[in-house]
Formats: sequence, structure tokens, C-alpha cells
Amino acid sequence: MTDPSAGNLARRFLFPNSVAIIGATSAAYKSGGRRWLSLIEANSGARLYPINMSADGLNGYKAYRSLRDLPEPVDLAAIVVPSAHVARVVEDCTATGVGAVVMISAGFGETGPEGRAEEIQFAQRVRAGGGRMLGPNSAGVFGATGGVNLLGWAVPKGGIGLITQSGNMALTFTNYARVKRTGFASILAVGNGADLRLSEVVDMLLADDATRCLLIYCEGFAEGDGRRLVDLLRRAGGVKPVVMLKPGATEAGKQAALSHTGTLAGDAAIAEAALADVGVVIAEEAEEAFDLAHALAMGRRLAGRGIAVLSDGGGHATIVSDCAGRRGLTLAKFSPATAARLREILPMRAGIDNPVDFAGMAESDPGCVPLALAACLADPGVAGVVFAGHFGGYHLMTGHEPTQLKVAAEEVAAAHDMAVAVRASDKPFILHSEHAERGLATLEPIFRADVPVYGGLEAAAKAMAALAIGIAADAQTERHVEPAPSTGPHGRVLLEPEARQRLVAAGIAVPAWHVATTVAEARAAFAALAGLGAAKVVLKLISDRAVHKSDVGGVLLDIGSPDAAAKGLRHLMALARELGDDRATVLVTGMIDKGPECLVGARHDPQFGPVVLVGTGGILVELVGDVASRLAPFDSALAAELIGRTKVGRLLAGYRGAAAGDRQALGDLVAAVSRFAAGAPDLLELDLNPVIVNAAGAHIADARIVVRP
Amino acid sequence: MTDPSAGNLARRFLFPNSVAIIGATSAAYKSGGRRWLSLIEANSGARLYPINMSADGLNGYKAYRSLRDLPEPVDLAAIVVPSAHVARVVEDCTATGVGAVVMISAGFGETGPEGRAEEIQFAQRVRAGGGRMLGPNSAGVFGATGGVNLLGWAVPKGGIGLITQSGNMALTFTNYARVKRTGFASILAVGNGADLRLSEVVDMLLADDATRCLLIYCEGFAEGDGRRLVDLLRRAGGVKPVVMLKPGATEAGKQAALSHTGTLAGDAAIAEAALADVGVVIAEEAEEAFDLAHALAMGRRLAGRGIAVLSDGGGHATIVSDCAGRRGLTLAKFSPATAARLREILPMRAGIDNPVDFAGMAESDPGCVPLALAACLADPGVAGVVFAGHFGGYHLMTGHEPTQLKVAAEEVAAAHDMAVAVRASDKPFILHSEHAERGLATLEPIFRADVPVYGGLEAAAKAMAALAIGIAADAQTERHVEPAPSTGPHGRVLLEPEARQRLVAAGIAVPAWHVATTVAEARAAFAALAGLGAAKVVLKLISDRAVHKSDVGGVLLDIGSPDAAAKGLRHLMALARELGDDRATVLVTGMIDKGPECLVGARHDPQFGPVVLVGTGGILVELVGDVASRLAPFDSALAAELIGRTKVGRLLAGYRGAAAGDRQALGDLVAAVSRFAAGAPDLLELDLNPVIVNAAGAHIADARIVVRP
Repeated sequence: MTDPSAGNLARRFLFPNSVAIIGATSAAYKSGGRRWLSLIEANSGARLYPINMSADGLNGYKAYRSLRDLPEPVDLAAIVVPSAHVARVVEDCTATGVGAVVMISAGFGETGPEGRAEEIQFAQRVRAGGGRMLGPNSAGVFGATGGVNLLGWAVPKGGIGLITQSGNMALTFTNYARVKRTGFASILAVGNGADLRLSEVVDMLLADDATRCLLIYCEGFAEGDGRRLVDLLRRAGGVKPVVMLKPGATEAGKQAALSHTGTLAGDAAIAEAALADVGVVIAEEAEEAFDLAHALAMGRRLAGRGIAVLSDGGGHATIVSDCAGRRGLTLAKFSPATAARLREILPMRAGIDNPVDFAGMAESDPGCVPLALAACLADPGVAGVVFAGHFGGYHLMTGHEPTQLKVAAEEVAAAHDMAVAVRASDKPFILHSEHAERGLATLEPIFRADVPVYGGLEAAAKAMAALAIGIAADAQTERHVEPAPSTGPHGRVLLEPEARQRLVAAGIAVPAWHVATTVAEARAAFAALAGLGAAKVVLKLISDRAVHKSDVGGVLLDIGSPDAAAKGLRHLMALARELGDDRATVLVTGMIDKGPECLVGARHDPQFGPVVLVGTGGILVELVGDVASRLAPFDSALAAELIGRTKVGRLLAGYRGAAAGDRQALGDLVAAVSRFAAGAPDLLELDLNPVIVNAAGAHIADARIVVRP
Repeated sequence: MTDPSAGNLARRFLFPNSVAIIGATSAAYKSGGRRWLSLIEANSGARLYPINMSADGLNGYKAYRSLRDLPEPVDLAAIVVPSAHVARVVEDCTATGVGAVVMISAGFGETGPEGRAEEIQFAQRVRAGGGRMLGPNSAGVFGATGGVNLLGWAVPKGGIGLITQSGNMALTFTNYARVKRTGFASILAVGNGADLRLSEVVDMLLADDATRCLLIYCEGFAEGDGRRLVDLLRRAGGVKPVVMLKPGATEAGKQAALSHTGTLAGDAAIAEAALADVGVVIAEEAEEAFDLAHALAMGRRLAGRGIAVLSDGGGHATIVSDCAGRRGLTLAKFSPATAARLREILPMRAGIDNPVDFAGMAESDPGCVPLALAACLADPGVAGVVFAGHFGGYHLMTGHEPTQLKVAAEEVAAAHDMAVAVRASDKPFILHSEHAERGLATLEPIFRADVPVYGGLEAAAKAMAALAIGIAADAQTERHVEPAPSTGPHGRVLLEPEARQRLVAAGIAVPAWHVATTVAEARAAFAALAGLGAAKVVLKLISDRAVHKSDVGGVLLDIGSPDAAAKGLRHLMALARELGDDRATVLVTGMIDKGPECLVGARHDPQFGPVVLVGTGGILVELVGDVASRLAPFDSALAAELIGRTKVGRLLAGYRGAAAGDRQALGDLVAAVSRFAAGAPDLLELDLNPVIVNAAGAHIADARIVVRP
């Protein structure tokens, strides 16, 4: 699957038989000292060679002056000497044929073009000796199975493989692993990337059996290396999940990345799309990146999007459910068997619909948690379970010591039972606990069952959502103002002439119109409108059988003569008869000169009262999703500000040479609609769509009003 | 500013002279016991009356059987009795004229309509006695200054006023306050809101002097109460910042909110817009909400959008800068004086441009941090400073004990100096530290200087961005694929005929065209195109002085006759002479039948190589921002999938009755372009815009290519 040399490289860096540190010392406050000590501590059997200019031995190991003095060529050499000495040490590497070099020494590519040229030469020399190099300016390497730790700090073992362009982020992620009770299979800090590029290091970890999920901190790729990574991951076919944190979408971020790793962050959207196409999970924040990798390293996956949310209380349940919903998950509908079982387990005050609200029950009887968990895991409609609340710390919620001890013991028993339930299932279970990161013994059985435990509510939800990898995405729940009819069924829809009359009565200018039922009336209407200057007219069928006129062909445009008007009327009346409506009429009004089409709407919101909406109109209003809203009423100045928030507002301002529309007229109309909406207690919905805005004004081309029945 | 009774209400709930707890007990594991104990502990002088059915005294206080037995009517009564007894206790409240009732007892509105009717009646009875009620199902009340704590847990004091619809969230926020070393002026858990609505409680806290920032957990408003809150906050004129966490944007979240607080979450976008209009900061996550309130309660504000970012290393600096950039902040340009001062303070290896990278310097010499901080705070171009890294824990980074003690002492001194620098300035300083939440003594001076300290990198950046309240927003940095020319200055722009030829040579169908320089050629071109079925043609000026043809009037549409073609040619050639181009030509091609306009483009990305873009086209391409991308090459099936991600793709599928376009043809074109892009190493940019897609195919109406020079 991967480059044939990747396994070989991984062996040298992560499973070396012999390791030298050039610049080793026993002084723990020095960079070379910390790393020598972490290497000794981690070592699982490799031969270790400290290289030091003066000492004869370090911590019981014989010390040497140079790589050339060693009894063997080493698999792995770490260089931790001042920059002035690096060139000489590199020559020693070349001469002795070191297989893998970790150059921790800094002061090269990050200082400018001269340093960059130097480090490229080091890379060439190492390769000339048959080796490959990580760094310079690398923080080091950690390999759990092979017993390598050149980072200088203790690293907990686990299933995450970390690749990072920042040494500080290696430390940050290590800190997360400590408090979250998980760990790393491997850590590779690529530093300046003079030789081994990010894509090659990823290839190494794809080949490493202990690495169950890759976590990558990447500010940018070397030229073409983003492409190499995508090609590699496509070939690998999703064999291991990859989570990436990739700052640099903003100017400030790009500026920082450039001065840090010297990488041009490039076009963030292109990078994200390309990486997402091969299954890379792009995290938005550092802790989130770690949390997702933690969950994915567990190995379990969601087989569907419906989950169960259990909680100690409604607030936690709501936050978890909402966040999971935003990430494409849904609340599963429980089977009757599950519902019956939950009713047995939980008291009457608990909510047993999904999300399940324990309503404080678990505080006094933690044993109900594993029972409910097992019931949910057994439900075929439930793909995974999140429990949110205070588990592990119920005993801390009482100040009464005997009770505290009793509850703590019950929590430990419940945690054991939860572990049993989890092991009996292959579905993912994720725990949120306020007490996740306090090292409580009550959570030990859960940590040991490899259940990810999060201190953040949203962290738990996002982690669960990340386990939906490979499941065809539903239409994600979107957050937008819904300008479509929502109260229609509960309200009465006015026919358009009546709607227009309401507007006129409210002092809102509506283009002249006539209602015709006969050919003669249609001709007369045409003549009257022509007299007002309309060269062409529109005919619209008015029928309560055809609320969506254009969907049934009930709108005739560009009618240019009295004869055409007469013909159109006959056609529409015939259409009405087909629809079974013998009370239909035809509305005749002038064609409006071209211009951007806007929506001006109003809603009665139950919580906020009258609200006005404005944005891009036409039949594509929902598709475009360009709507801004404000509580009514407001004046023309605020209307103008509201219009300015929309894309169509920018268009009307004469964007890129487009003809400017009469924004003042639109603002006045929007303000007038806001006054109308605020003063009409029976109004449920108003849609003026389109309002055609041209240089001569803002013209209402269609009006729809829904009132309380 | 606020309702005149709000101050009165605040006095009763938060500064009572006498408090009774009905259901008090000394058993700490009971709800009434925990609350009685937290009240005793918090009390700063009010007369306390435990009411208990059997005890004569509790914790040294005389106990009573009923409110009616008390020597005075109390200001505040907390009801913590089983639901069956609540009606009787409410009657006691009415009879004795209790001013404020906190009903902690549950089992009413949250159980259904009958419970709702009951609690409404309780509210009416309390009001009949001259009082107001919080709850039922309230978690309690905390007031720092007035010495009230009916929550049952210890609450640290501070400047945040919390109003919550969830008792669990009151506990979650209290836990945050503990570890983050800040606290509350007040906490009010509104529970079911049978009497006091959210807006009224907000009014109370606006009137409370100790509350410096409001934090609200709100799942939904009672009917019309969202509007009342907005009106209230508008009248209050931003006197206090308000942060709100408001889950319920998704179906899952709405479902959970409905079963929890019974509120219909309503339209999230309308609510968010209305609240944002009166300055409410809408937080996306629970911890973020708390973190923003924490920063805002500090009182300091940004006076501009340019900040300084200091860090121990580049990764942290990049993440903080990028996140701050996404929230509208920028990296300030340092004054020459600041740059010179930083050069003095920091070693050569440090990066002294903004963001400043200490490159490990602070680990060995923490004293450089306050010096750099003071220098940045003194820079008139810097509105605020974030320091990110390991401050407070440098001493932990060495295993060498004498060094550890020495560094710890230096860190304490540095922290003192930082506090001095902060107090000497009125600009905000925010600290990120990996060790923020570990209770280290090294951070004490910083906590005492009221500096918010965050454990999360993004948390620090977001908190700083929240302090830009009231500063006119710049155009926020947006994340989108940039289809506009970006390499133009570095590449050679082909004239359109040459671009078309490149496409044809690559096997991509381009509508027939001719190049004319004389009237005769224009007539001949018209005739030839008419012979191919074109009723009308387009004339375009081809000149390297007019790369944007339509901007200079170089495109003539709807040319319907040989004469019109001849006239058009003369017009365009005259235009060319005006532009000083005597080598211009005119391209003649057939008009294309109407259809949605798409963009099909390609770019050479330095990191990812050839990339293809597709989306909504026309002159508004950047305004609409509807673009999807994929690495080239790919086949028609993947092209179809890519098109399906765009809005124009949904439109072409026949969205809401729009005429369906030939998506197959567009997919084939996109795939062909992807092969072309992948096989053309000199290609920097390709823009086919518009490609007009109608029922008869996908037609390239304009082609622009930029190649390596």
C-alpha cells in the first residue's frame, strides 16, 4: 500500500537496535540532558551510546567522543549540539553510515535562506551515507513499542501517532494525553523538514502497527508535498484515520506560519477540500484535534447516525444533542423494548425519551447508569451512546462523609458494570464527566475499558460524530433563517389582490393592478396599464386552488397587446376550470424592468414577535440562503444597514460593474414593511418575492400574506 | 434605564434581610440539607430560619414548623419540600407576604400540562401575597455581596452574573470558575419560569452593581420574552456585556430542549440576529461562553483590532494568531521603538516580528516575559497582548531539582513584574498557559492582577477578540476558495483565441469562433456561424490592453445581422485604437441559449499541484462564493459528485421547478478540464466563466488562461 521503504524507515526511527545521542549529558536542565534521560527511561533493549566531549561515562553508560569511536554504526543518532558543531557531526554520520538522524539542533532553515542552504546540504550528506534525517529544529522522536524517547519528557503510551511541525505542540498534545488518560504509539517532530517531508513521515506511521490513528499538526506543506500526501492516503484507502490541525486560514495565521515554519500556508479551502476528499478529519482547534484522535484510536465506529444521549440533567443533554446534531448525528428513536426497559430502570420523574434525563437519579443510585447504558447499546436502532453529567464525582456532591464513601463504592461498581456492558458490545460509548480530568479512582474501570472520557460537553459530541467516518452524509442540519412558509397550515393565506390591498392600506406602494374575469376586462386592464406607461403586462391566475401560481403555469409574462391579454385570460380561466375553481380571477399588472430580485418578508416569531427578513429573492431564495433579519419596527437607516449585510445588498451597491439599484427605495420599502409587521397583530407571514430593484425604484412583483385564521 | 422594580427584586433575592428554607435539614446528602448548609456558610448577616417538620434546632439555629410561626415575614423563602407539600407552603408564603420565593421543588411544568397549570397557580398565589417567584425546578440562587447561597454547593466570588435554565449548567459553570480562578457576583437558576421570566431576571442583574458581565444559558424564551429581553437590552444601552449560550439550532437540540425546559427553541437564526443587534455575544460552546464572560468581567476592552502575540514557540503563536484572525483581530505592526526594545530583551534566535517567538528563552530566563510584555503594552499601535506557552510551569520542564527551584523563584518574580506591567496599563493582557489549571503558585500574582488565564490556545484568542466589543467590524477574514486571478502578475495571460486553441488542442469542445479584423471578415464570420445555426452572435474585443473585456465595453451581445456585425467590428476596432492597441482583433462566436452560468476553473497550487474549481459563475462569482474544488485529474463520476456539492449543481438538477440543465455535459467538461490541468505543467490558471449550461449542453462562453512566463 505504502512506499516500500516506509516500513524500513519506521524501523530505523522507531525500533532502532542502537541509538547514539551526540550532545548527551547528565545535566537534566540541558536539552541534551533531558533527552538522554528520557531515552534511558524509555529504552526497551537497544544499545545506547552517549556522545560527550568530556565525560567517560553517563548514568552508567560508557560515553564516547564521536560516532567514529563507537563499536558499531548506529541505527539512530540524535544530534543535540550547538549549531556551529553540526556540520562536523553530520560528516561523522555520513562516514559511519548512520541509518536515521534526528537533528534537534536548531539555527538553520528557520533563520533564513543561508541556514536553509546549510540544512539542505546536511540532508544530502546524511543521504550520501545511506541515512535519512528528521529536522533540523526537530523536538525529537518517541516510539512506544521500540522504546525510543528523544523528546526529553515522559510520554504516556497509547494508540495515537503524532506528526508535528511544532515541538511545542508535541508537548501540548502530551499534556492532553496525560490528563485525558490516553497516549501515543509514536511522535515524530519534523522540524524544518530539510530531508524527510511530512508525506514521508505519514507513510512511516501508516506502516507502524501500533499507530491506530494519526494526528498531524501542519502549518503548510513543502512544494508539492500536499499532493504527495493526498496521493499516499488515497492509495492507503482509509486504513487508518487521520486527524489534522492546520492553522493558517487567515492573514494573521499565515503571517505567523511563515515566520515559524517558513511555509506558505497556501489556499486553506483548496487544502481542506483535497484532504477531506481522502478522509482526513480537519479539526478546528488544538484540543478538539486531540480529542478526535483519542476517540478514533479506540477503534470503534458508528454504523449509523442515530445515537442515544443519556444525562444527569436536561442542560447537558441539550448541549450534547445540539452539538451532535450540528455534526450530522440524530437522536435515535428507541425500540419499544428499550423504552420499556428504561421505564423499569428509571423513576417516574426521569425523561425516558431520547435524550434520557436521569433527573438526579444517578447521584443517589449510580447503578442505574450501566443498566440504562446496556439497554441502549442493545437497541438495534442505536449506533452509539453518550452519557453526559457528573459520573465519577457523584460522591463529591455530598458533604456527608459516610454517604460519600457509600456512593463512591457504588460508583466504582457502576463503572465496572459499564465496562462490562461496553465490552459486550462493539458500538462506541463515550463518557462526558465534569470530573474527567481529576484522576478519580471511580473512573478507573472506564479508562481501562478504553472508553474515551471528556471533560467538555461538546468534545464528547464531536468525538462521537467523528466516529461516523465512512457513513454517507445526510443533508447536514443547516443553520439559516427559513424564509419558506412555516405557519401556512395554521394560518389563512390571502389571495394576492387581498394581500396587495392590505399593503396599500398600510401605505406601502404597490405597482398598479387590475382584476379581470372576462376578456373585455383583460383588454381594459391592458389599456389602463399601457396608459400608465407599461409596454407589457403580466397575467396571474388568482385561485385558492393554485397558491403557488408559477408551479401550475398560472403566470404569463411579457403580454404585449390587448389581444394577447385576452388570449391569456382565456387560457388562465381554462386552467382554473381544470383545477375545479369556478371563482378564479386574473390579476393584471405591468411588467417591471429588469433588476436584482430581492425578498422582503416578515414573520411573527413566537419568542421575538414581528421580524423582518431581507435578502436575495426569486424562486431560488432557499438555495441561495442570503437572508438577514431584524426585529420590527425600524427606520430606513437601520433598513439600509440590514440590506448591507446581504449579498444582494452588495450587488445593489454596484458590485463589480453591475448596475446599481435604488437601494434607498428598497430601504424605504423594508422600513415600511417593518412598521406594517409591527402594527398588524394578525400577521403571521408576509413574503414580497420578488421585489425587483432597478435604477427606478423597488417594485413589488408578488405579494403573499398569511394571517391568523 | 431598567424596569424600576428590578432593583427592588434584586434586593429581595440577592440582599435579603431574612431567609427561610422550608425543608431545611442538617443531612448534607439531602437537597434541603446541602442548601441549608451552603446558606449558613455564605450568610453575611441575614436572619436565617430553618423550617423543618420535626427538629427544634438545626446547626445552632432555632427551627420552625411553618412560615406562619416565624417572628417576621421573610424577604426570601426557599421551598425544598416534596411536590405534594408545595401547595400548602405556597399558601403560607401568600399568607405571610414573602417577598421572594425560590421554588427548588420540582415535578410541575416539566412533567406536562397539568403540572404547568399547577405552577402557574403557585405563581399567582405568590404574587397575590406581594411576592415574586423563581422556579419551580430552580437549582437555587447565589448572591456574593448579599451573602445568599441556596445552591447547595460552594461558589467562588467574582464579577460574573449567571442566569440559567439548567441547574446542571450552574454546576458546570461553577466548576469552570473554580479551576479558572474566577467567580460569580450572582447566580439565578430560573427553572421552569412559572413567574419570573428570563428577561425580568436579566433586568435584576443589570441593576446589581457587583455583576460586571452577564452569562446566560438559555434554551428558549417564553412567548414574547425574547422580544422583551431585546427591548430591555436596547434600553440599557450596552451598560453591561452579555454572553449567551443558546443551544437548539438543530433538530436534535430542539428535541432535547423541548423535553427539558418545554421551550420551543424557535428559529435560531432570527434569535441570534436579534440578540446580536443589541450586543449579546453568542457563544458556540459551554466552556467558551464561560471564558468570554470571564474576560469581559475583567472590565478592560480593546481600543483597536491590532494585538501583539507573544509565545514560547511558533506553533502556539500560529494557532493563537490564526484563531484571533478568524475573530476579526490582526497582528499589530510594532513601532521602531518596540522592535528595538524587543531586540534588546530577546536573543538573536528569537523572532521579534509580531508574533514574537521567544524560542525557548523564557524557560531559562522567565524575566524576559514581563519586559517584552511591558514593551508591547507601551506600543501605541498595540491594543492588547496575548502570551501563549508554558509560563508558570517552566520550572517543571526540568527534572533537575536545584534548577527547578531557581526557575520557580524566577517565575514568581516574573509573574509579579507582569502584574505590575498590567496594572500600569489599561490595555487587556491575556495569558495562555499549559499550566493554567494546575493551581501553581507561580501564577498567583497573575491571577491576583485579574488577568484571565486560559489553558486553551483558542480560548485565549477568542477571549481577546471578545474584548473588541463596540469596535466597528472590519471585513472579517473569510475562508473560501479564491477563484479570482492570484498569479496574474507572475504569469502570462493568453488572449482568448489562443486560450480557446489550447482547449481545442486538449480535446475540449469550444463553441465555434472566428477572428476578424476587417468588416468583410466580420460579415463572413456572421454568415459562417449562421450556417451552423446561430441566430445571433457575440463580438469581443481581443486586446492585451483590455484583459477584462466587459469592463471596457469590449463585448457586444445579440448581434443579429451581417450589418450589425460589421458595425460592431468598426466600433470595437475604434475602441482598440482609443486604448492604443493597433494589433487588436475581434472574436466572433454564436450567442448561447440561456441557462445557469457556471465557473469551471483550474489552478496550480504550490502545495497540491493542479486543482479544479467548479461553482456559480458570472461576474458575481466572488460575491456568491459557491465554489467546490478537487485535485486534478478525476473522472466524470467524481466531477458529477463535485458539482453536486455546489448550489448551482442543485439548481441544475431542476431545483424548485427551474429548468434542469445538462449536468452530464458539465460533468464531462469538468473532467476534461481536470485532465487538461493535470497534463499541462505550464498552466497556472484557467477560468471558463461563464460556462452556460442549458438543456442542450455545457457551453464555454469565455476562456482565460494564465501560463508560466
